Amino acid sequence: MNGAQSVLRTLLDAGVDVCFANPGTSEMHLVAALDAFPAMRAVLGLSEGVVTGAADGYARITGTPAAALLHLGPGLANGWANLHNARRAGSPVVAIVGDHATYHKRFDAPLESDIESLADPLRGWVRRSSHAADAGADTAAAVAAAMDPPGRVASLLLPGDVSWGDGGVPVEPIPPKAPRLPGEAAIAAAAGALRDDEPTTLLLGGPACTEAGLRAASRIARATGARVLVETFPARLPRGAGLPSFDRLGYLPEQAAGQLDGTQRLVLAGARSPATFFGYPDHASDLVPEGARVHQLAGREHDATRALEDLAGRVAPEYAPLLAEQARPTLPGGALTVQNWVEVIGALLPDNAIVADESNTSGLLLPQATAGAPRHDLLTLTGGAIGQGMPVATGAAIAARDRPVINLEADGSAMYTLPALWTQAREQLDVTTVVLNNRAYAILRMELGRVGAEPSGAAAKSLFDLSTPDIDFTAMASGMGVPASRATTAEELADQFRRATSEPGPHLIEAMVPPLA
Amino acid sequence: MNGAQSVLRTLLDAGVDVCFANPGTSEMHLVAALDAFPAMRAVLGLSEGVVTGAADGYARITGTPAAALLHLGPGLANGWANLHNARRAGSPVVAIVGDHATYHKRFDAPLESDIESLADPLRGWVRRSSHAADAGADTAAAVAAAMDPPGRVASLLLPGDVSWGDGGVPVEPIPPKAPRLPGEAAIAAAAGALRDDEPTTLLLGGPACTEAGLRAASRIARATGARVLVETFPARLPRGAGLPSFDRLGYLPEQAAGQLDGTQRLVLAGARSPATFFGYPDHASDLVPEGARVHQLAGREHDATRALEDLAGRVAPEYAPLLAEQARPTLPGGALTVQNWVEVIGALLPDNAIVADESNTSGLLLPQATAGAPRHDLLTLTGGAIGQGMPVATGAAIAARDRPVINLEADGSAMYTLPALWTQAREQLDVTTVVLNNRAYAILRMELGRVGAEPSGAAAKSLFDLSTPDIDFTAMASGMGVPASRATTAEELADQFRRATSEPGPHLIEAMVPPLA
Repeated sequence: MNGAQSVLRTLLDAGVDVCFANPGTSEMHLVAALDAFPAMRAVLGLSEGVVTGAADGYARITGTPAAALLHLGPGLANGWANLHNARRAGSPVVAIVGDHATYHKRFDAPLESDIESLADPLRGWVRRSSHAADAGADTAAAVAAAMDPPGRVASLLLPGDVSWGDGGVPVEPIPPKAPRLPGEAAIAAAAGALRDDEPTTLLLGGPACTEAGLRAASRIARATGARVLVETFPARLPRGAGLPSFDRLGYLPEQAAGQLDGTQRLVLAGARSPATFFGYPDHASDLVPEGARVHQLAGREHDATRALEDLAGRVAPEYAPLLAEQARPTLPGGALTVQNWVEVIGALLPDNAIVADESNTSGLLLPQATAGAPRHDLLTLTGGAIGQGMPVATGAAIAARDRPVINLEADGSAMYTLPALWTQAREQLDVTTVVLNNRAYAILRMELGRVGAEPSGAAAKSLFDLSTPDIDFTAMASGMGVPASRATTAEELADQFRRATSEPGPHLIEAMVPPLA
Repeated sequence: MNGAQSVLRTLLDAGVDVCFANPGTSEMHLVAALDAFPAMRAVLGLSEGVVTGAADGYARITGTPAAALLHLGPGLANGWANLHNARRAGSPVVAIVGDHATYHKRFDAPLESDIESLADPLRGWVRRSSHAADAGADTAAAVAAAMDPPGRVASLLLPGDVSWGDGGVPVEPIPPKAPRLPGEAAIAAAAGALRDDEPTTLLLGGPACTEAGLRAASRIARATGARVLVETFPARLPRGAGLPSFDRLGYLPEQAAGQLDGTQRLVLAGARSPATFFGYPDHASDLVPEGARVHQLAGREHDATRALEDLAGRVAPEYAPLLAEQARPTLPGGALTVQNWVEVIGALLPDNAIVADESNTSGLLLPQATAGAPRHDLLTLTGGAIGQGMPVATGAAIAARDRPVINLEADGSAMYTLPALWTQAREQLDVTTVVLNNRAYAILRMELGRVGAEPSGAAAKSLFDLSTPDIDFTAMASGMGVPASRATTAEELADQFRRATSEPGPHLIEAMVPPLA
């Protein structure tokens, strides 16, 4: 057995049976070994951003890692942004980065680079395998490291000769660490904060965003009068009828500051202390209101859900959660707007959907339109690196073949990782992509004014303009084997969305919306 | 004047008047400043791989840097692969990476990352600007660093508050270092090697690949009987009628080994000592023949052209260079093959073209078909990171508005940075892209056998298959505003290529070729 075979055997024994891949020559022995291990499903992505984003989406749905097979430093770099998003999501990912044979590195061949320096900022786990005999053990360690709570990017660097060398030894899986409950002091302090009479906000994030966590938070809110908010960009948020419904903290600083205004006790459950997304000249970065006390009930590495249940048992033993009732918007009509397209989605969202939302400015009104839709899971842009939605939707669909996946995608973001559509077509995944084409980097138009930059002219504004030339997303989707249509009215969007979600396989709808005013 | 304005003023004063850009919020003040500095041409790319590859292409043609404006760590990561290619090309590039405001970094906001760790492996120059008052000086230093021979990637990290802060001071350009002549000992040793009776190969690379360098090498070859080869992937190689014509060292190890077989003296002019692209189980990485002596006439940082002229003055004072005569292939007919499509290009290549070649396996026969075509500059995949051709062609066309640019592009590589087409349409660049669609990662099919992997089955082979579904490049090009057509015969390719190169603006031709057998 060679090193590559021991890697695949060890992955499978650890339950890692999906490998998103964009391999090159240095990964050929892993590719060659696939036929000997038919339980490993290899999914080809036509660029590494697709591969890593799909691994993130897969992990958000299954809670377990897929492998992402990448080609040397440039492959890791191409996939880095979506690994950054995965890291911020707390998604377990095993990134296998092929490298030159150990003895070949000294020749400084064209593809030579310092892969460790690229992998380090992912703040996960990095190891270079040195011998075929170690490859299995290194793989087992990588899977365990990826599963370290809350979930990390484990980068295993695999030189060509380690893959093709003889003497590979498969290694039994290392039992993953379970997330711990936070200490009694943290829970007691949070209970104390909730019991006093100060205005209190409970901010949920990461591992608190489970059905059980939301139910516990709702009970706490009913018993104590605390306000509950969810972090701005949760990795996965169960929503819809039958679940508690909470607002997310706003993206814009003044919006978030308004939501937190008056808060004197801030209890964090799996969430970071709130700060603005960017620094702005005229707004504080820290969103904790002046004088408020912050209590960390549970960190992202903790079992924040159990911590919330424990807390609810203390402060709200008699209370039941408040659950959203089914309440869909009525189907709107007329030319598409930033208001009515979200109502179409809310009215027609299929049962048990996964919604990968990278609609950015076009989707600001989405949460209220879908709060009473059938239960669904929302996946958001955790790390702020655009080009995440299409790959995440792809990986989520691989993870949950029986669930409809809806990808709400901004035009600018879509252009980053468009080849994800090809993988969706190849794998015949039930993904309905709605591209909100407002012909602009609308968020930057907004931000230009917000950062206090002086009035600008045509040169500046042209950098946000995606209308010269107009991009035809239906043509590009068709070019990659995804049936596509264009909607300019709410009626058309409704018709096309109904059809797309009722037919098997991927579909793309280009929804022509005006930019947010 | 704020920091951002001082950056733009300093860039312009140093002659940097093109900025390829994909900005975000942290770069808004640079964007806002554009209208005050109309001499700065900002060119929008819809993903960072386009931006950095275009800066590389621009530098290869002008020899001077463009700026590449990128958004934090993920922006740098997305653009990293083409910066890697630029580094291997010796292209001067000023990468301006916006970052969070200095005081905002401690909040670990979603886009926070260790940008230095990403930039370091580019082995160029990295500096973080700390105050608006320093931004101008840091910019001047970045431009000078980029111009350090042979040309480097200079990464200037620019926090938001440094951009918007008052007190920016434009700084006069720092005179760039000129490349030095190598020492007398190196030139004398090379002359000695060329004068003795051993079989000698002169390998040209980087700064030796100029018209003057090629002419000097040809004189040396005629006088001494030395064989001349050009490195496998030169950044820019002048070719065609009226210039000396030399073979490039082969990509495949047995091909390169065959070319060097028997060589006892190897003289390197601006080239690295030859090694295989990848390590292979059954082939030495080092391509220097056993027992051969290697003489480094000039490194990549030297003025290798002048060194060759000096050397020619010593060993070949009486000799004139041998120049290729105009000799185009006759126009072929019939279904497209890997042979006849290159003949079409050779027959119809316009005068003074720039050819960005990322045709990979489909283009193996290109060099002989274009050796006697009108003079042109060939730009190749210097760093081996695919997705370079379309952006490099885009940047080259910005650099040389009066020259036709031909981009020969493999299907697999094209999918990496396809949005470059949109920039070509937006800027109405005279780029003719020929996508060689063989529906496969053909090079990996080849490599699978070559790395000694055991016979593989359908699972392995499916990872090289781009035909399920087929990709329609004409649809995707049209979707980005580039007129497109498909050719299945040599006659169609000839007709379409003629039309594309005679009409202004970008065009794409999808040439359906069989994979290399």
